[in-house]
Amino acid sequence: MTFREILDIFENNDKFVILTHKSPDGDTLGSGFALCAFLRDMGKKANVLNSDSFPERYDFIYDGYYPQEFEPQYVIAVDIADTQLIGSNLSQFAEEGAIDLCIDHHISNKYFAKQSYVDPNASAAALIMYQIFKYSGREISRQIARCLYTGIATDTGCFKYENTIPEAHIACAELMAYGIDFAFINRKMFDVKSRGRMKVEQSVIGNMEYYFNGKCSVIVLTKKLMEESGADAAEFEGLASIPLTVEGVKIGITVKQRHENVYKISVRTNEDIDASAFCKAFGGGGHIRAAGCEIHGGLDEVKRLILEQVERVID
Amino acid sequence: MTFREILDIFENNDKFVILTHKSPDGDTLGSGFALCAFLRDMGKKANVLNSDSFPERYDFIYDGYYPQEFEPQYVIAVDIADTQLIGSNLSQFAEEGAIDLCIDHHISNKYFAKQSYVDPNASAAALIMYQIFKYSGREISRQIARCLYTGIATDTGCFKYENTIPEAHIACAELMAYGIDFAFINRKMFDVKSRGRMKVEQSVIGNMEYYFNGKCSVIVLTKKLMEESGADAAEFEGLASIPLTVEGVKIGITVKQRHENVYKISVRTNEDIDASAFCKAFGGGGHIRAAGCEIHGGLDEVKRLILEQVERVID
Repeated sequence: MTFREILDIFENNDKFVILTHKSPDGDTLGSGFALCAFLRDMGKKANVLNSDSFPERYDFIYDGYYPQEFEPQYVIAVDIADTQLIGSNLSQFAEEGAIDLCIDHHISNKYFAKQSYVDPNASAAALIMYQIFKYSGREISRQIARCLYTGIATDTGCFKYENTIPEAHIACAELMAYGIDFAFINRKMFDVKSRGRMKVEQSVIGNMEYYFNGKCSVIVLTKKLMEESGADAAEFEGLASIPLTVEGVKIGITVKQRHENVYKISVRTNEDIDASAFCKAFGGGGHIRAAGCEIHGGLDEVKRLILEQVERVID
Repeated sequence: MTFREILDIFENNDKFVILTHKSPDGDTLGSGFALCAFLRDMGKKANVLNSDSFPERYDFIYDGYYPQEFEPQYVIAVDIADTQLIGSNLSQFAEEGAIDLCIDHHISNKYFAKQSYVDPNASAAALIMYQIFKYSGREISRQIARCLYTGIATDTGCFKYENTIPEAHIACAELMAYGIDFAFINRKMFDVKSRGRMKVEQSVIGNMEYYFNGKCSVIVLTKKLMEESGADAAEFEGLASIPLTVEGVKIGITVKQRHENVYKISVRTNEDIDASAFCKAFGGGGHIRAAGCEIHGGLDEVKRLILEQVERVID
């Protein structure tokens, strides 16, 4: 598909539904709400849907948004690689033929839509969206620029990760020209933590265990600790990245209690170890630097099993 | 001064000393070593000096660097706003007339050198350096690109802070074309922490105090805590940003013990409060979002004085 064909679709239809993925992040919301505003600016009707509610921490993205009343005519999925990511409250869209167009940047995209524009090289779906808008030659609003900046910044870890391409920097340089409050956005997305989150971090770091001359670190999140912190589930997101941030650590492991004798294991590795292969040994899987699995047993038993596997791969 | 004049200086002199500021950071080292390599590539002799030793965490910046033997002829200060920042081991350069050229981006630059190029709008000294190199039309090496990227990334908090200008993004997009390992650099600069640092963070977060309905947070670093952590001075850098990361906090204060009854106060604020004005009340100063001062007295007395001042500005 070309950008011209996508723009023709925007022009030749009138009532759009934009689907964003469940457990929404900055990129699916940023690109979804940017597209919605772009279509409305074209005089179209458009709504953004999500299986979950829109999280409060992204409120500046849907600032000023209100749902419109209309009979949907054309469905666009953004940043959705697989119908499984649509979520249970929007399961009608997971059926074959329900989605007309998918705009995405995941290499794992399943091409479930009638038409798909997938660019796995793009750092974010919002980057593709920006390129489409730019190609159109239409003016975009400051609010659209905020949404797109947020999508690109969040999916690249604020330009930190390997997936950051030069075009991501250039797009954001151009988006900054709209006078967006990018420092506020970045502070909100990357720096600000709730007191509950602070407390949890402090506790897990304080009890971090080191093995194999500090090459492996382990944090344990028991149900008791999580309940006592007073933090809610969303505040435990991203904790799994902490063990690997310690200097010298090659494999960082997070052991999170799901139920009595059931533990979710999250593994993060640096250049030397394949996290996905590590987790496969326990029936799990994932990416080369980030993977997960579930192990049943008592905490000591679970830790023993993991450390035996670490010993096999550590050197 | 024009870039042409600066390049003429590079061409018309042969033996350069490049001064970087004490307690060196990624920008002074990045721009200093980039300039050194650029001059050497021009066939000149050049060394980088620092009053302190070059910190190990920046080892990839001075990778392959070796000091040359020569009688200095021309002295260039980079990222140095004031002769007080040269440091005690290089105090000979703090004397009037000792520095020929200063290239800097601090608005507070004291114009102590015979000639100065100061661009307070530039996000980093490394950004100015990149602009000079680009203007010259000379090829730069991948190592120079790494140094410049590091300077820009560190001084902007990885493009997060308000001082990030579009040109910073564009420069880094261009520097990425040299095939630099920017994700490695960012991981090392922003994510990896020593065990000592982890321990210190854990301790200060655990003892963080909140005032005025959580709008003000205070951390205290006593000499005892710092000694017991086993971490060295460099590992305490940047701790002052922690209090402001708590949700709802408008003014974050770090009280660091220098000596018995002498405390260094670091103040960080969000949009609502002027940190510089806050610190001026105690004879200090700085920027609108980050400032500092020194207060003499016992810890309780110092905290009382600070909180009285917070009460005056908090609403």
